[in-house]
Order: sequence, then C-alpha cells, then structure tokens
Amino acid sequence: MVIILKKSHDKAQLDSLISWLKSKNFECHLSSGTSQTILGLIGDTSVLDIDLLKAMDIVGDVKRILEPYKNVNRRFHPDDTVIEVGGSKIGGGNFGVMAGPCSVESAEQIIGIAEKVKAAGANFLRGGAYKPRSSPYSFQGLRDKGIEMLLEAKKATGLPIVTEIMDISQLQYFDDIDVIQVGTRNMQNFELLKELGKCRKPILLKRGMSATLEELLMSAEYISAGGNTEIILCERGIRTFEPATRNTLDISAVPLLKKLSHLPVIVDPSHATGKASLVKSMCLAAAASGADGLMIEVHNDPAHAWSDGQQSLTPDEFKSTMDAVKHIWSFCFDALKEKSN
Amino acid sequence: MVIILKKSHDKAQLDSLISWLKSKNFECHLSSGTSQTILGLIGDTSVLDIDLLKAMDIVGDVKRILEPYKNVNRRFHPDDTVIEVGGSKIGGGNFGVMAGPCSVESAEQIIGIAEKVKAAGANFLRGGAYKPRSSPYSFQGLRDKGIEMLLEAKKATGLPIVTEIMDISQLQYFDDIDVIQVGTRNMQNFELLKELGKCRKPILLKRGMSATLEELLMSAEYISAGGNTEIILCERGIRTFEPATRNTLDISAVPLLKKLSHLPVIVDPSHATGKASLVKSMCLAAAASGADGLMIEVHNDPAHAWSDGQQSLTPDEFKSTMDAVKHIWSFCFDALKEKSN
Amino acid sequence: MVIILKKSHDKAQLDSLISWLKSKNFECHLSSGTSQTILGLIGDTSVLDIDLLKAMDIVGDVKRILEPYKNVNRRFHPDDTVIEVGGSKIGGGNFGVMAGPCSVESAEQIIGIAEKVKAAGANFLRGGAYKPRSSPYSFQGLRDKGIEMLLEAKKATGLPIVTEIMDISQLQYFDDIDVIQVGTRNMQNFELLKELGKCRKPILLKRGMSATLEELLMSAEYISAGGNTEIILCERGIRTFEPATRNTLDISAVPLLKKLSHLPVIVDPSHATGKASLVKSMCLAAAASGADGLMIEVHNDPAHAWSDGQQSLTPDEFKSTMDAVKHIWSFCFDALKEKSN
Amino acid sequence: MVIILKKSHDKAQLDSLISWLKSKNFECHLSSGTSQTILGLIGDTSVLDIDLLKAMDIVGDVKRILEPYKNVNRRFHPDDTVIEVGGSKIGGGNFGVMAGPCSVESAEQIIGIAEKVKAAGANFLRGGAYKPRSSPYSFQGLRDKGIEMLLEAKKATGLPIVTEIMDISQLQYFDDIDVIQVGTRNMQNFELLKELGKCRKPILLKRGMSATLEELLMSAEYISAGGNTEIILCERGIRTFEPATRNTLDISAVPLLKKLSHLPVIVDPSHATGKASLVKSMCLAAAASGADGLMIEVHNDPAHAWSDGQQSLTPDEFKSTMDAVKHIWSFCFDALKEKSN
Repeated sequence: MVIILKKSHDKAQLDSLISWLKSKNFECHLSSGTSQTILGLIGDTSVLDIDLLKAMDIVGDVKRILEPYKNVNRRFHPDDTVIEVGGSKIGGGNFGVMAGPCSVESAEQIIGIAEKVKAAGANFLRGGAYKPRSSPYSFQGLRDKGIEMLLEAKKATGLPIVTEIMDISQLQYFDDIDVIQVGTRNMQNFELLKELGKCRKPILLKRGMSATLEELLMSAEYISAGGNTEIILCERGIRTFEPATRNTLDISAVPLLKKLSHLPVIVDPSHATGKASLVKSMCLAAAASGADGLMIEVHNDPAHAWSDGQQSLTPDEFKSTMDAVKHIWSFCFDALKEKSN
Repeated sequence: MVIILKKSHDKAQLDSLISWLKSKNFECHLSSGTSQTILGLIGDTSVLDIDLLKAMDIVGDVKRILEPYKNVNRRFHPDDTVIEVGGSKIGGGNFGVMAGPCSVESAEQIIGIAEKVKAAGANFLRGGAYKPRSSPYSFQGLRDKGIEMLLEAKKATGLPIVTEIMDISQLQYFDDIDVIQVGTRNMQNFELLKELGKCRKPILLKRGMSATLEELLMSAEYISAGGNTEIILCERGIRTFEPATRNTLDISAVPLLKKLSHLPVIVDPSHATGKASLVKSMCLAAAASGADGLMIEVHNDPAHAWSDGQQSLTPDEFKSTMDAVKHIWSFCFDALKEKSN
Repeated sequence: MVIILKKSHDKAQLDSLISWLKSKNFECHLSSGTSQTILGLIGDTSVLDIDLLKAMDIVGDVKRILEPYKNVNRRFHPDDTVIEVGGSKIGGGNFGVMAGPCSVESAEQIIGIAEKVKAAGANFLRGGAYKPRSSPYSFQGLRDKGIEMLLEAKKATGLPIVTEIMDISQLQYFDDIDVIQVGTRNMQNFELLKELGKCRKPILLKRGMSATLEELLMSAEYISAGGNTEIILCERGIRTFEPATRNTLDISAVPLLKKLSHLPVIVDPSHATGKASLVKSMCLAAAASGADGLMIEVHNDPAHAWSDGQQSLTPDEFKSTMDAVKHIWSFCFDALKEKSN
Repeated sequence: MVIILKKSHDKAQLDSLISWLKSKNFECHLSSGTSQTILGLIGDTSVLDIDLLKAMDIVGDVKRILEPYKNVNRRFHPDDTVIEVGGSKIGGGNFGVMAGPCSVESAEQIIGIAEKVKAAGANFLRGGAYKPRSSPYSFQGLRDKGIEMLLEAKKATGLPIVTEIMDISQLQYFDDIDVIQVGTRNMQNFELLKELGKCRKPILLKRGMSATLEELLMSAEYISAGGNTEIILCERGIRTFEPATRNTLDISAVPLLKKLSHLPVIVDPSHATGKASLVKSMCLAAAASGADGLMIEVHNDPAHAWSDGQQSLTPDEFKSTMDAVKHIWSFCFDALKEKSN
C-alpha cells in the first residue's frame, strides 16, 4: 500500500501516523521529493481500512497494491479448488454443467427436464423455486413447494440440485439442496453471505450485475471468512450502455478470475444475453476461454415457460450445444495451460 | 403495449394469441403491412408478463408504452405524497434534511452530533447501526447496540431517526425507529421489500447503484403493493466508467422521478461523490433541481470516523451548507413549478 | 414505427400528421383506447427523422420497430459479404488474421515481424503509422514514413496491409494500403466516413468504445451510402465500470452483428483487454463465437515496444495462439450454422 | 509515480531500470519488503510513457500519483482563466450563456432567435452549421452557408458566435467565428486538436460521451500544447445504463474540473438530458454547482426544428430559465468559494 501525503503535511502528524502504522506491524518507507512525499507500507494491508486512511488530514490519496482478499486469493493458495457433490465435480480440470428451467412449475415438468438434460450431458439440475422478479405482479416462484419438486427430480435422476436462496429465513428448506445459489441481486447481501459462511455445502455465487471482479471476490471472502471454502464463482453478464442484450457477457472475467483466485469459475449465458439465439455461441466462447462449467436455462416448452422463456433452450438445442461444447472444451483448457504468464 | 409479430407468423397462432388476450380483457388492434404486422394492446398491461409474450413463437418483439407500476405512478395519483413523522415533513413543498454520521460509534458521539445537526437545521437524524461493508474485515457496525444509542439521541433531541436495515431478522429492533432505510445493495432484496410493505412506517428506498429509474419505482411498487405507501426515494449516485468520484450523481433523476411518481425524492451527495469537498456544491445542485430533501453525512471528527470519514462534513461545514441550501431552495422549487410541461 | 400520441391530442393536429405521413407514402393504422392512442406506421421509416416526430406537440413517444440502416442490413441482403484483397479473404467462411505491432518503429522491425506472423498463419499485416495517443507528449507514430515501411514489408512478404487513418488529409498516403482502418475514436467522425465512402477499397471499422451496435452499423451505413460496400466490422472492447481490463470485450456482439448485418465481423482482443496474458483465451473465445477473423498485436520485443507493449504477444505466443485457434474455428463455425433461429 | 516490481524480479534488470530512470532525471526510492518491492519516482512523470513501463519484464504494475497534464493543471496555474471575446466573458466570476438553435435553418430564423436570446440574457449565440448526425439520411446542416448566416446574425445583434467544426478542412470558413466548438464525438480527434492548438481564438471543448475527466483534460492539453490556452470545458452528459435520459448529466464534473484545472467549465443540459422539460431544472443545478456558464438550445418553433427539437426551449421558456438562473448564480458562486478544502 502506498500513502500519498498532502503537499503541506504536518511533521508531527506524519510521525504520529508512522508510529501508529508501526504499532500495527507495518514496515514504513518514506520517499520525500520536492513536489510530493509518499509512504510505502509493507505488511498485511487487507486488515487496514483504506477509507479511514484516506480521511486523515495529512493524506492526499491511498493506493492499494495487494488485493484486499486473502482466503480466495490464488497468490496464497496456488492450487485449483475442486468442488465435488453427489459424484459431480467442478474445477481443476472438471467441467460442470448445470441445466434446467428458470422456474420449477410442477413435479412432472422438472422431472421431465431433469431426465432430458441428464441425457444430454448435464451433471447438475438447476431450477428456480424462490424467484427474484422485478415486478411484484409477476410470478414469484413455487417457493418451498418448488424445493420439494426439485428433490423429487433429484431422487428420480440422481442429479445434484442447484437452486437460489433469497433470504436467510428460507435456509430451513435447503437441507437437502446440494448447491445454494446466491443471485446477482444478493451478491452484496452481506448478512446472507455471513450465514452461508456457516453452512458446509457449496455456494454458487453470481456476480452482481454491476459488481467489479474485486467486489465479487470480496463477497466470496465473506463466505470463506465464515469457514465455508466451497465456492463457485459465476459470470452472468454485467450492466452496460448496450441495449441489444439484457446484459453484456464479460468473457474476460473468466481468465482473470481464474488468475486472481483458485475458485472454479462458470458462465451463465442465458442471463448474460437474455436471448436463446445467442446461448450456443456464448457457451462455446465460455468453454474456449477456459471456464470450469456452464449454467444454462433449458425448458421443454420455452414459449409457455412461466418466466424467462425467451432465453431458454429446448432440450434438443441443449443437446446440440453440449455436443459442440464437449468437442472443444478439453482441447482449449489444455491449450491455455501451455502458456505461462 | 405493442406486439411486433415475426414476418412468418402462423395465422392460427395469431388467432389463438388474440383470443387469449381478449380473455384477459385487452382490446387488440391489428395493423398488417407488407413488411411487418403489429398488434396494439389496450388495457392494464402492468399485469402482463412481458417476458412470456416475448418468448412466444410468433412474437418478434414487445414494446411497452405505459409504465409497469401503478401505485407509485403520478399518472394515477397526481398529488404529491407528503410524509410526516415526529413533526418533520418531506414532500409537497416541505424540505427534509437527514444528517448524521455514517456509523454510530457511541452514545456520546451520536447525541453530540444530533445536537449539532439539529441546531444547523436538520430535521432527521441519520446514523448507521447495521453497516454493509464490502470487506468482512471492516467494522460491521454496532448493530442492535447502535439502535439503542440512536434512540437515546432521539430522546435527547427530539429528532426522528433514520437508519438502515440489512435483513428481515433485524426488523425486531426497529420498533421505535421512525424511518427505515433500504440501502443501495438491497434495493432489489424483494423478500425484504415485501416485509417492509407490511410495516406502517415510512421507508427510505435508496436507488441501487446500477438500477434504472424504472427499477427503482418497481421496488417502490413492491413496498406499496403490501399496503405501505409511505416511501421516500433517494438518488445516491450510480456506477459509471468515471473513476474520479465513487459514483456519479444522476441529478436529472430528481425532476424525472418527480414527474413519474408522486413520492418525495431526496439526494445523498455524500455517497454519490465519496468526497467531502464536493458535498456542498452537490447539495446546492440538488436543492436547485427541485429535490424534496437531502441526506448528508456529518461527523464531529471525520479523520477518526470508523467508516467513510472522507465523505463526511464537520458540523461547521454542515451549518454553512445548510445556510446556503436554505437560501435557494424555496426560490428554485417555486421557479420550477411555474413551467408547465 | 409506432407513434404514441399524448392523451390530450388535438384532432386537427392528428389529421394533419396523418396526411403528412401519407404524403410520404406511409400507411397509417390508428388504434384508439380509453387510456392511449397509438399510430402504427408501415413503410421505409429509415428516412424519417425520429427526433422531429418526437418534438411534435401531439406526440408522446416514438418507438422504432425496423432498424434504421438498410445497405448493411441482413434483412435485405441475406448473403454474407466476402472481402478479398491481395489473395486474402474475410467473411463467408473465410477466417482472416491481421497481426503486427501497435506502432511501426523501423523498416527492419516491421519486415521482421511481418515474416514471423506470416509464418505463423496471419494473412494480413497490421501496423500503426498514425497513432492516436491520449497524451500529446506520447509518441505519435512515424506517420507517412511509417506508411512507406509498411509498403516495404508488403513487398517483402506479400501480406496485404491494414493501417489506421486519423484524418482526411492523410488519405493521399493510403493509395497502396490494402485495408484502411477507422479507429475507435473516429467511428463517428462522419466527415471521414463520407470520404471513405468514395474510396474503392475495404474499410476496417472499429466499434467506438461506447458505441451501441446500432451506432456501429449506422457508421457502416455512412460508408456504404457513399458507394463503398467493402466494410469489415471490428469489436474491440467497450467502456464499462470494470477497472481490471482496459475495456470489456463484448463477445456477444459477434453473433449479434452477424445476425443484424451481412458484413464480416472480427475481434481485437489486444485492445479489448489491454493485457497480453488474456489475449490467447480471448482469441479462442472469439473464434468459438463465430467471428470471421482476429486482429492481434504482435511485437518482437514487447518490453521495448514504443507503444502498447503490455498487450502485445511475442511471435512465439502468436504462433501458439494461431495453432489453437485454427484447431477449433471451423468446427465452431459449422456448429453454429446448424442452429436455425 | 510508483512502480511495483514483480516478486521474482532480476537484480540486474532492476539496476538497469534505475539507471535509465536516473538518466532521465528522476529520483528513485526503493522500498523492499518480504512480499513486495516498490520503486517511488520523483520528477516530471507526465513525459514518461506509462504503458512502456508496464510492459517491462520486471514490472508488475505502475501507479500514477501526479496528473499527466501540465498546462491545464490548476496545481501549476492557480488562477482562474478568464476568456473574453467580443465583450463577452467566461470564467473567474463571469457567467457566460451560449444559446441558440441546434441547426441554423435560414438567415431569418437565426437572426430572429439571436435577438430573442440576447434580450433574455444570452451573451453568445450558438447554432449548428456542420451537424454530426448518426444517420447518413438525416439533415447534415447547411455547412458553409450556415456559417454565413451565423455571421449575419452576429452583425445584427453583436453576439459573438460559437459553432462546431467537424473536420480540419472546414477551418477555412471559421475566420470570423468567435469560439470554435469541438463536439463530443471529436474530443479525441487528435489531428483536429493539434490544428486548433495553432489557432488564436477560444475553443469550446465538449467532453466525449464516455470520456473520463482525465481524458477531457488531456485533450485540452493537446490544444494548449500547441500554444492555444483559451479553452472552455463543457460537461454535456455521459453515456450510462440509464435509458430515461439521452445521457446522464455528470453534475459533479463541474466542481471537480474546476478543482483540477484553471479553465472555465460550462454545462450543456440540452444534450445531457435530451428533454426540454428537464432543461430548466438542470440549468439551475448547474448554476448552483458553480459552473461558469451554460450552453442551451433555443428554437422559435421546436416542434418544427430540423434537428433535436425535442430538447429545445422556446424563447419564453429560455427567458424564464435565465431569470431563475441569474437569481441564484452569484450567491452560489460566492457560497462555494467560502469553503476551503
């Protein structure tokens, strides 16, 4: 960390700042020039409150050099985290595919789709029971009944279940759910993150639609700080000025997150684009970029889906997509490893 | 609402769509041309799921014409909502000023600041008890102890209290709080919004940092759909590409929100800019633009604040800001009313 | 096009609007409901000034349904445009690779790199002679001397040359240049676009860093309106809130542009990311998404490049990238064609 | 400037870097810690190519501390620049108002509007002769004929003229124009900026719609590096995700630019919002924030304007806006000076 002092700083204040920093076990290196004075700080700065420093009278600016996260930082944990649940793996050379409908609509529907996506190559079933909808007048999900239907589909197919939690109070229904999803609107619901840190099951953490990669990793750090280190990161599109897609898929987030962190990184092209016609090409792009998996919306009858039908693939389209993705994924994964940077 | 049909739509499907829409009490007007066919819909489209329509086989696109919110829509409620609590008013020609520290640090601190901001012209005391912090290693607020200290300050000064809730489970501590604040990260925490819709006290709803004005109004609609119509909207800066400020204050949101909705609109220049040196000019700009109030961070000793010190005003700076704001506010409010559009 | 009338519109004004529109050969369909009246317009609305309509007294809003571009619209030109220059092709199943240094530094340098990129599989040589730099104190390119060196490299290797023009006055030096590049900062330099519309050689049009896809296609329409239909579109990253990369590569722009337009679409991962370590994965992602080509910065000695060294590949890295890209491109191109939407 | 070295840097390379920097007259301060080594640089770093440094083998990252601009930096030129032309002043306590139509349509039109805006308090006449339009099929301006009409209006009213240049080749027609405007799409047309640096008349430089404040100031630095120091900066809205306004007015840019630079700063609320109904409130907000002036579109008959009618004020609306603005401006200007930061 580098502290840039104001031009007209007071010597006594500076001495006091330096001794305070030394008392916190930082090494301080002062460089004084005619036009500026900077203070270099060596030590574990992730525990320092950068806003507090910036507010000090003699401080002009503060620039962080090391990342503010530790547990999820590849710098300190060089090996890939591999997450395994019910026989399905993600990370460290294992490609995980989570597929299923936006919303659970009935036991028949979810079991039917589960069988089809399993046959096409998915190794997780996704389906929404609690649904975040921007209008209070839109369908809000089948809620705990939907959870029960997901568990029936699990029994029928053996696929582990991924589904979204929207509030701490719903946690009681998630006992038999395999992977708990935190949606984009809750990425910084810190009370929920803390609670999930106490769980001992994998968390799928979706990037907030306007969250930086650093903020995403800090939210993962919240979960891991509670002792739960099984976290899957998910890029699902960010909000930009472009109106042609629902969001803009930030594909370079994949290699960047994998460089910054040891956690597995998957991509959700359904929400990123909002258009079924773009999902196949974006799945291929994600696989080619080195992603550890995909989350894809599949519906038996998209035109009559209760939510987000326009971005869902049919089971046949999903099968064709999976076939193509599997053809290129391991080749690209290996090709990207070659390059040392 | 206008439904644009695909070029090659099936006549039978179209008939079926039209009779379904008629069964939901919509009038349908069909315009067929050589290169396109459009279907105009007249009726209460706020209850129609636009995504469902878009997903239909024969539908190319859907364009909404009326806003998807009703309760909070000025079109149906032309008169300004005025919120009154503990003798302090906001809206409809009443300027409300909420001031206080980012975090409550002790009873002495909060009472001391409360007295000073009251003397300078604030009519609400703000202070954070539950604090959303991006790092799990940063100070998380005094939580329920902080609420108690706020209530002590209320007793001492008579100022009504505004403070943030982060989770439904905290609601039990908010019985004597006057205005419950929903922070930017929770603007689309729909479970929380539904719960607050059951309360009978004013809600201060901050705009999500990447929320559109329509999304903000839809979140207000969530609260009002539960029966709680006392809602104050707050513009607090949006996320853009510009790194020079923490966020970008969207000042035109003020007149736009007031045109679209009857709810009072306030501005938080402290979070919008993240820099104390910009707060006074942004308070003046907000007052000049017709805002119904301000939310301002004030700290007795910003350089030693436990959070966000760099954006806090000292009590003296707050006094000077209030004096200037009061000088121009009512003149501008009246000048803006003149113009009919 | 749909015109939404104000609630309180004047009947005489409406009649006058309708007869004006009919005089311009539009069919008009009026739908009147209790809460709104809309006017559907059938005809070539690309020639209508939408802003003029919006400004009319009785008009509340105008919604476009057809795209405002014609020449570059796939709706009217279903077949892929193939661009061929000096034996190298792009589009319609031909993958074009443009590689070379950010800046031309000397004849030796550019010839040396040209030979290496040709050997590795590039079929165009790129190199900057006129350089847009954000600081007036940074190296501004070798300008016309640089153009001469590029032509020497063309003679030595046979590779057609792509280089950037920054102003109409430079056009005199581009006689023997094969493809003229319009950079991101000039995408809406309309005087330049008009002038390039008079040329009879391919134009590489880079997306403005905050341009929508529609704006990019309108800029291509400017060139084609002048009679030059040989245009290559280039996605090179857009400006977002994310600071971890120089820009955000909008990978879904590839399939979207190819759906909206018949023009070839290439990707520039070097400028999109600004980081050499991300170029290989983004080249793979672009190829997998169906792009018609790539533009890649390659430098013999990136650490001593005169500009943008941090995003350049070494010739060896470029070779390894090309090998991987070629392995997957044609498979993905075919796999994406399968899917009918 | 601070250079952060890679963990595994080579001692010989470091020595070589340091002696190279010393040869360029920089003082170097090395701070070595167990987990990182940083090199502080003292000297005029505006001449250093930051990208070149970042590309070096041993360099992990580079962080700038001083601004990269000099001539336009208030740090080195503490006094406000005042621009005076034809008796009208902007900056240093002088409020300048530029008003007029988006496009010049006829001599009668522009003279008529000029008389009205002068009477209402404008001290500059604006009007577009060369018009940047996103569609090649939209009206492109009267060009040199429009310039002649502007000069007629100058003769008739005495108002100095502000109009936009789109290409160097048009400069021949600007001899009698008082202030040359560079539009948002040309803010980084560096060849044009260099040419304008050779002029000896004021340049109105509009912020690019996705330009950072630093980039705007670097473009001003381009002009001033050529010897032309008479530059007016103009905030005109930036591109964000919000669709409710054409752009988002970045009101905090006003106090920030005035802190960073000594140049006058004006605001264009017409283009920022794209809606006439928001112009008055945004003019008030701009005046309250400390702006040195305004640029406002005024048209005698907005509903029949040839371009941008929906954002133009009528002369009466302009008069009412001016009256309100003048009432608050000098009070706010003085109130903002009080505060020392």
